[in-house]
Parts: sequence; structure tokens; C-alpha cells
Amino acid sequence: MHSINLQAKSGLFLTIEGIEGVGKTTAVKFISAYLQEAKQPFVLTREPGGTAIAEEVRKILLTPHEEKILPETELLLMFASRMQHIAHVILPALKSGSWVISDRFVDASYAYQGGGRKLEIQKIASLEQWVTEGLQPTRTFLLDAPPHIGLARAKNRGEHDRIEQEKIDFFERVRASYLTRAKEDPKRFQVIDATLPLLEVQTELVKGLRELLK
Amino acid sequence: MHSINLQAKSGLFLTIEGIEGVGKTTAVKFISAYLQEAKQPFVLTREPGGTAIAEEVRKILLTPHEEKILPETELLLMFASRMQHIAHVILPALKSGSWVISDRFVDASYAYQGGGRKLEIQKIASLEQWVTEGLQPTRTFLLDAPPHIGLARAKNRGEHDRIEQEKIDFFERVRASYLTRAKEDPKRFQVIDATLPLLEVQTELVKGLRELLK
Repeated sequence: MHSINLQAKSGLFLTIEGIEGVGKTTAVKFISAYLQEAKQPFVLTREPGGTAIAEEVRKILLTPHEEKILPETELLLMFASRMQHIAHVILPALKSGSWVISDRFVDASYAYQGGGRKLEIQKIASLEQWVTEGLQPTRTFLLDAPPHIGLARAKNRGEHDRIEQEKIDFFERVRASYLTRAKEDPKRFQVIDATLPLLEVQTELVKGLRELLK
Repeated sequence: MHSINLQAKSGLFLTIEGIEGVGKTTAVKFISAYLQEAKQPFVLTREPGGTAIAEEVRKILLTPHEEKILPETELLLMFASRMQHIAHVILPALKSGSWVISDRFVDASYAYQGGGRKLEIQKIASLEQWVTEGLQPTRTFLLDAPPHIGLARAKNRGEHDRIEQEKIDFFERVRASYLTRAKEDPKRFQVIDATLPLLEVQTELVKGLRELLK
């Protein structure tokens, strides 16, 4: 069992969230380059995944199977991989004073399994409580765009994984959940309009990063 | 989300439990032969596993990894695979009037992750509640033997999986949890002394099966 001593942590924990095709990968690359420039040590990671075992779980989650994966199964697998991710990657890095940049974290479970799959929020909250033990990102960059824009971009990348095969109303619900969570915690979330030109998106990211580097 | 209508079920659900080397596989074979003889249709399955996706999760759980699997991860993966197992194998079989014989089920989570790994029972109980939605075996055959006997037998089978590599006090705790659960629900459990000669073990199984076939 991991035990989190929030006092002992010195690194900051940043997450990037948003639906398919909003530019998370590009944003993560930009943030990495910016932090390197600023000589701020950081660890780059992603969910689902981030450790060998979590990546095995990721494969199960994203590979299209003939067998239907139930929403509950999806949620349990997400939190199983997250448990490994927190204990073996996120906490050790934060404790060493490094920053952690994660492409998705708990907010994605609320958005995808809660909003998208319509699972009860209470189930997600109770799993969050005992898996994260209170660990929350210092800052979450939410890249926001209507699903038809994001999905058109994702389509250009070629083959779709199991999640990307969902219909547009699924992603509408995912997006709405993300925005609701952002509204509920405006101190942690920075919502960025992902339909803006890349340079403007990057300007917004820089604003957030500068504030954190202070 | 699966929805369980207990009224609509007609098949019986039998589980075999016990620590490594107590003779579960032999017992399952015997039960199968007995039910075939009695012309009682049944489905034979096992946990973790039972569906393609659940078997992928089983591989993660049982393959020795360099990365330590946390007790919480183990529990979440168990229930993720169980969700698939219930929805795609157990319930459809029971609804069709078939019996289901499963080599392990929820009791194993209480015994291994609760007793063995010392996870809070409350965590297991809340996962059980929302994954099984009240589905319980009609009868559970618990094959009981001291760990040193079971482990000696398991050793003769050759290579050990990740769980079998645990130390003897781990299995003492697992056994104790099984026995506690059996005591708490004597109507469902039939505890069989697995140190008895095979013929006597089989006589006990026949007793239980005859009662169920009435």
C-alpha cells in the first residue's frame, strides 16, 4: 500500500486533459520543451499506462476486442493501472522534487467512465479516494474543443482505437463532464480553447507554466 | 451494466475454493464427471479468467513481473476480470438453466487480497456489491488443508506462478480467511478436509451434489 505524505512532496504535478484530437500530444511536447528551457526537471508520463504493468492494462483497454468490455470493467482497469502509476512513477518522481506531467489522470475517469459511459459518480469517487489517497494535480490544462473538430483531427491520424470508435454523443458527454469538473475547481483547472491557432494555445500554456515556475 | 434478475435464474452456481495444492482441479474434474453422469448440463469455468479479456487480466496477475503489483491493483484487476466473467459467462449460463461450476470466485478475493494481502474487508465488500450485484454461489466447496501440505503438492507440479511464490504465513492467513467465511455462512459452504484420501474427499463431494440435484 502506498502512503502519501503530501508535506514531503516538493515537485508539482501537472495533467493535460481533453477529448481525442484536441492537441494533447502537441501540448505535452510544448510543455516539455518549455520546462527543459527553464531547467525544471520533470517526468513525462501518460494514462492509462506509465509502468510496464499499467501499459499491459492499457493494451486491454484500447485494443478492439470481440468481447464487450463493460463500463465497470473499464473503470476498474483504469484504476488498477492508475494504482501502479501513482506508486511506481508519480509519487517517487514528486518526492525526488521532479515535476510530473501526465497526459490524463483521474479527471479522465470522471469524463469518460462517468460522463461517457454514464457510470455513477459515487463509484468513481470511492475508487479515487482509496487509490489516490488525496493526490491531486497542482494544475490541470483542459484543452477544450467540440467533438466534431477533435474527431476530425484524430481521424487524420489513421486507425481508431476502441475508445475513438465511440459515437459523437459519447464525446459530447465526455466534454461536458470535463467542463463541469473545471467549473467546480477553477483554481486547479486552466481551460484552453483548443480551436484557437496553435500559437495562441501555446501562449495560454506559457501563462500557466510561468505562474507555476514562480 | 449487467442487471441480475435472481428470479429469472434457474441454474445453480457452484464454486470450489481453497489454497494452492488442496486438489481443486481434481475436485472440479470429479464434479464434472458426476454431473455428466447425472445428465445435468453445466458450464465449467475459473477465476481469474473465464473470458478472453479476463484471461488477459489473469496473465497480468499471475505472471511474475519485475514491477511489484500492489495489493490494491491485484484486487481491482480481480474484480475487473470478474465483471467480464459474470456478465459474459456466469449469468448467461445460469439464465439458460445450466449449472455453473467455477474454480474460485469472490471468496478468493476475501481470502487472498483480504486475508493474504491484508486489504481492508470494507474495500472488498464494496467492490463485491457493485460487481456481483448480489450474485452468490448456491454452494461453495471449500477444500481445506494446512498450507505446508498444499504447497508441497503444488511444488511437485513444477514452476510457480506469482501467487505460489508467497511465503507460508501468507497462505496461513488465506486459509484462516476461508475458514472464517465458511463459519459465517454454513448454509452455503461445505468444508471438506482435503488431507483425507481422495475417495473420502469424493464421497463428501457426492453428498453435496446429491443434495443439490434433488
